Amino acid sequence: MEEKQDCRNLTTLCYIERKNRYLMMHRVAEKEDANQGKWIGVGGHFQVGESPEECLLREVKEETGVTLTSYRLRGIITFVSDEWGCEYMYLYTADGFEGELDEQRMESCREGILKWIPKKEIFFLNLWEGDRLFLKLLLQEEKLFSMKLEYQGDRLVDSDLKIYG
Amino acid sequence: MEEKQDCRNLTTLCYIERKNRYLMMHRVAEKEDANQGKWIGVGGHFQVGESPEECLLREVKEETGVTLTSYRLRGIITFVSDEWGCEYMYLYTADGFEGELDEQRMESCREGILKWIPKKEIFFLNLWEGDRLFLKLLLQEEKLFSMKLEYQGDRLVDSDLKIYG
Repeated sequence: MEEKQDCRNLTTLCYIERKNRYLMMHRVAEKEDANQGKWIGVGGHFQVGESPEECLLREVKEETGVTLTSYRLRGIITFVSDEWGCEYMYLYTADGFEGELDEQRMESCREGILKWIPKKEIFFLNLWEGDRLFLKLLLQEEKLFSMKLEYQGDRLVDSDLKIYG
Repeated sequence: MEEKQDCRNLTTLCYIERKNRYLMMHRVAEKEDANQGKWIGVGGHFQVGESPEECLLREVKEETGVTLTSYRLRGIITFVSDEWGCEYMYLYTADGFEGELDEQRMESCREGILKWIPKKEIFFLNLWEGDRLFLKLLLQEEKLFSMKLEYQGDRLVDSDLKIYG
């Protein structure tokens, strides 16, 4: 039964928007973190029995303290890596939340440091190569998309995109 | 590595449309099939490293012989069952394909019998309770949705729906 309920390979990722900025997390807290040094959105792994939206709301609450009130599924991402195996990610943006991101939380989140980054400056950050591809789509495209990203180590070696009308 | 690449809990399901009918499969072939006796669309489990669309195209080809040329992601479904664990399904409809569904294949598909069913007659078939909910949405709603379905045995005990604008 336990093995049937495994959902370690499922994740959510969310870019929360406010005043033309995205809330980005600089992953500097956990040394064993695959994302060490990278800037990403907030999110994480599914717990057993969670829907994508339940995972999203829980992870955002845990990592930022706020509760999302307006969000949208923007893409589904398939990661294939020679080091990390497969991961299936549900990608969201959000433009409404309740609660405050206080200064203390901004500097001491469990998994990294949170910062509001102007959208036009996002691409100057240390990002995963594949993240650049879907972040570009989030900024340019309203339509739902499915993207496959294939990594060898830190290097993106292949990508495939399907945009839904 | 192998365990990281496990994706048994991920599936696709597709309702192929033609002349106001859906291609339905009557699951009568495999005695150990959890869907035994039920009518469903075509689809199946991910293979290692597949994206949702790669799984979709392979499964449709295997089960029907046709190659999809026009399809759309309509929903993401979270199943939670006390008997079967969790399953995360990507739900599609398709309105274009290449190739012919010949008579022989219609009667002898590996996993069941294929039949074109007029949409208005779908709900008279032996369907899973939860499938009735998302089939209704497929017929009524153009927007992407996320649905969570919780089963105890064959019985749907809870459901939750989020429609994306």
